[in-house]
Amino acid sequence: MTESDGAVARSTNSGDPGDRLAELTGRLAAFAAERDWEQFHTPKNLAMALAGEVGELVAELQWLTPDEAATVMSDDAKAADRIRSELADVTNYLVQLAAALDVDLIAAAHNKLDEVSHRYPPARIE
Amino acid sequence: MTESDGAVARSTNSGDPGDRLAELTGRLAAFAAERDWEQFHTPKNLAMALAGEVGELVAELQWLTPDEAATVMSDDAKAADRIRSELADVTNYLVQLAAALDVDLIAAAHNKLDEVSHRYPPARIE
Amino acid sequence: MTESDGAVARSTNSGDPGDRLAELTGRLAAFAAERDWEQFHTPKNLAMALAGEVGELVAELQWLTPDEAATVMSDDAKAADRIRSELADVTNYLVQLAAALDVDLIAAAHNKLDEVSHRYPPARIE
Amino acid sequence: MTESDGAVARSTNSGDPGDRLAELTGRLAAFAAERDWEQFHTPKNLAMALAGEVGELVAELQWLTPDEAATVMSDDAKAADRIRSELADVTNYLVQLAAALDVDLIAAAHNKLDEVSHRYPPARIE
Repeated sequence: MTESDGAVARSTNSGDPGDRLAELTGRLAAFAAERDWEQFHTPKNLAMALAGEVGELVAELQWLTPDEAATVMSDDAKAADRIRSELADVTNYLVQLAAALDVDLIAAAHNKLDEVSHRYPPARIE
Repeated sequence: MTESDGAVARSTNSGDPGDRLAELTGRLAAFAAERDWEQFHTPKNLAMALAGEVGELVAELQWLTPDEAATVMSDDAKAADRIRSELADVTNYLVQLAAALDVDLIAAAHNKLDEVSHRYPPARIE
Repeated sequence: MTESDGAVARSTNSGDPGDRLAELTGRLAAFAAERDWEQFHTPKNLAMALAGEVGELVAELQWLTPDEAATVMSDDAKAADRIRSELADVTNYLVQLAAALDVDLIAAAHNKLDEVSHRYPPARIE
Repeated sequence: MTESDGAVARSTNSGDPGDRLAELTGRLAAFAAERDWEQFHTPKNLAMALAGEVGELVAELQWLTPDEAATVMSDDAKAADRIRSELADVTNYLVQLAAALDVDLIAAAHNKLDEVSHRYPPARIE
């Protein structure tokens, strides 16, 4: 591990200025606390909520052709709003689930990408 | 990382130094480009991949009691590794889907939270 | 039901009188044909629709405690109606996906159960 | 309700000879009882298991083009086996979830189809 890896591995909630995901994580924790919703935010419940929102996101794309889906964000303002809203819900539950399990999503994502990069080396250019 | 990797990172969501999600977004774009996988990364395909990984994440928690799930990360090192790995996969596909749809996840998440905050005001403290 | 509906029912999974799943399969095929919806019912689209409906079903149970979920069908008539409706949607898309892939769900289910029975023998009673 | 509707509404577990779904439902109940797995088969857990298996099913189709997905069952014997196996898992958990919630899937599916038929009348043929 280099020094910069160590920096990456810092707590998700460190709230470094400029780290937008850490800021969102903090806001979501405060939001749940202010409403006394922490009691519902168990790992199983949050995983179900995440699955529910991913279902709604998938449903927005299900009947579109591949070509329609490729341009939906510029072609259909209402669908674009719904898709942004579903992506937001997925993000918010994913962040809350990771917090409930004390997982740093970005560090985990980089670790996985290290593994996958090793397993599937880039195509050779000849 | 090559110079062009750096450019990819900066082109997405501003890439301010310290913005860890923007850095990850750039790394994922470079990763797909180097493997010529962009052809597979359509919105429908990425939404399906996201649903698939969320399914695997949910499966890690399905037979645990609520109490077991609350402490799984410290009680069972192998399960904890699998859960981190599934959270990573979900994150990576969510980030790639948002990029394919040109959606800023963090901005969308804050907008949604503004809406929900308005709809569900905090409990009154008396 | 017209004569052609009957023909559709018989053509799928034998349609023995009394086989309620075969009857439903036939009705769903006729339903889609009468609305010219077969063009949308590709395997990928139907799998996405199935994932979407499972998401809505999961969402009905996500915030309930295990005890609340155990008695929701008798305790909360409105939730019970929504749950029956979501189970219906899941069933209908599963049946249509199996038809699109030409898979006999019941035969596949028994084959899988044969395999799993072998892998996990019944607990010994002493 | 006509007399034949009443017949349709009979208990899922009636096991009428020839009703293949009722037979499967009975076999699944016996299978879980013999292994003392009923304790795990709560509505929330089974809904999560269903979501997990649907995720695996979706994953089988995610990177295929629409044309590849249309012919995968005849073109790729190994993928066809995996898809049949995932469809079986989805069916088995759906049947067990419906049993845990005491819902007759086929009756619910017909009720939903009645509703949807009313909402979307068949295309007019001129």
